Amino acid sequence: MINKLVEKIKKTNAPIVVGLDPMLSYVPEHIQKAAFAEFGETPAGAAEAIFQFNKAIVDATYDLIPAVKPQIAMYEQFGVEGVKAFQKTVDYCHEKDLVVIGDVKRGDIGSTSAAYATGHLGKVQIGSKSFSTFSEDFATVNPYLGTDGIKPFVDVCKEEKKGIFILVKTSNPSSGEFQDREIDGKPLYQLVGEKVAEWGADCMGDSYSYVGAVVGATYPEQGKLLRKVMPKSFILVPGYGAQGGKGADLVHFFNEDGLGAIINSSRGIIAAYKQEKYQNQGITPENFADASRMAVVDMIEDIASALK
Amino acid sequence: MINKLVEKIKKTNAPIVVGLDPMLSYVPEHIQKAAFAEFGETPAGAAEAIFQFNKAIVDATYDLIPAVKPQIAMYEQFGVEGVKAFQKTVDYCHEKDLVVIGDVKRGDIGSTSAAYATGHLGKVQIGSKSFSTFSEDFATVNPYLGTDGIKPFVDVCKEEKKGIFILVKTSNPSSGEFQDREIDGKPLYQLVGEKVAEWGADCMGDSYSYVGAVVGATYPEQGKLLRKVMPKSFILVPGYGAQGGKGADLVHFFNEDGLGAIINSSRGIIAAYKQEKYQNQGITPENFADASRMAVVDMIEDIASALK
Repeated sequence: MINKLVEKIKKTNAPIVVGLDPMLSYVPEHIQKAAFAEFGETPAGAAEAIFQFNKAIVDATYDLIPAVKPQIAMYEQFGVEGVKAFQKTVDYCHEKDLVVIGDVKRGDIGSTSAAYATGHLGKVQIGSKSFSTFSEDFATVNPYLGTDGIKPFVDVCKEEKKGIFILVKTSNPSSGEFQDREIDGKPLYQLVGEKVAEWGADCMGDSYSYVGAVVGATYPEQGKLLRKVMPKSFILVPGYGAQGGKGADLVHFFNEDGLGAIINSSRGIIAAYKQEKYQNQGITPENFADASRMAVVDMIEDIASALK
Repeated sequence: MINKLVEKIKKTNAPIVVGLDPMLSYVPEHIQKAAFAEFGETPAGAAEAIFQFNKAIVDATYDLIPAVKPQIAMYEQFGVEGVKAFQKTVDYCHEKDLVVIGDVKRGDIGSTSAAYATGHLGKVQIGSKSFSTFSEDFATVNPYLGTDGIKPFVDVCKEEKKGIFILVKTSNPSSGEFQDREIDGKPLYQLVGEKVAEWGADCMGDSYSYVGAVVGATYPEQGKLLRKVMPKSFILVPGYGAQGGKGADLVHFFNEDGLGAIINSSRGIIAAYKQEKYQNQGITPENFADASRMAVVDMIEDIASALK
């Protein structure tokens, strides 16, 4: 799957991923109204609203982008109905041949991580049959439990040719609280980055490993260091746009081949119709998805000009 | 909810929690057969099998125990149908007045953690209405992202009088890889423990905080230290039984009031019918739930005699 991701990035010339993290407050009123008319003001109604919202954004952008990253928390908040909408979103994005990165940040002890890996990336055996359930292409994984929490994911990645992105240095303001603390002269995130390189070494695609890392756009210096620590790992970079990261900050997340990083934007794209910038170009809540397309084009340009 | 947990522990004299972590291989064949006859060898069939398995175990043990801990990974592996079985399990345990600890190990940046907290512990607003969705009483949370990943959970705990257990020192063999590394002369788990005490200080129940910690039974020395670092935090202790922790190892996880810890056993109870010990007492796969009751009684005795 890392090969497919690289190939799609080259084809689209867009090392970006659209974060499908729909808050209900992002969903234009006409979509909410239609969903509530059918299912009531219920979790099923909310789930329908966010799925229709996602679908319109995917329809408006899929030809420009290699990948999407649905954040499962935004679906889980609506309970079982929300999780159904997550599944429908994953399936719909696959219909459009997009690479789907499940932003699930799972991680547990061995046997439990194995169950997460099975559910999100693998196949589950039921009697004489086996099923792919959530079927993302990549999943994000939390490293706090160490190697035996990661290994089951790596095993499934090898078997299914899927991938993971391990949290190394996260984009949030307090990420340094533990991640920046020095251990034998190195910050914890660097130790985790070294482990990512190690875990990824024996499951290589053509040029990059199945095992990637998450490093926030909001920490460009750390990104520069980590790029060197994990030369064969793709870096998934959240925090661009709404969280404050800029195109110019991103240069050092990439390798000299112009690859090795994929930049996520969520709110900046899916809620672009709320920005004055796009409203001034004729965007209304009714054509919100057109604003998402404009925002994707702008983001691709911003990153391309930074990489020049 | 911490008050209810303490009260139920006192009433049952059982500082234990039954881990509802059903692997399909634990479910006796007659239950699998009945479920597959109705739903086929499908995720819906597997979900029905694990729910019926859980229900029988809960029916056989609920009067002896204060709490259960369903591990959501074991449900997620079956996709949406599995998540439905998780929800049904939570609801059924609530009918039996059990405290439900959702072992979900979530954790993300602020707004995303807020969505997880809403979904698992809080209420989600949909139009003019609000809904409790998964509705656990406690959730386990991963601390790697620092304070702003934890705070949204604490906020919901305050609002809803719910609780969390934050991963401090996990029970698995490689937990030391990062958690034991020394920072300014202290292991990382101790720093996380100090933060747990800090986060919990302003949301106290009658004698314990809404914010607890997870410390593995497999690390008794670390448990002894952490008990002192977080005197007002309940410690959820996995790793007893199948993972190797013994009653005698547990003494120092408790405070002098005989409270402050709750010991989890999963496989040792839910798959007790597979142990020779219980088979020799007339247990067959048909009366598997009776073995779970025997195992609960044995575990309560083991811990009580260790605490004497």
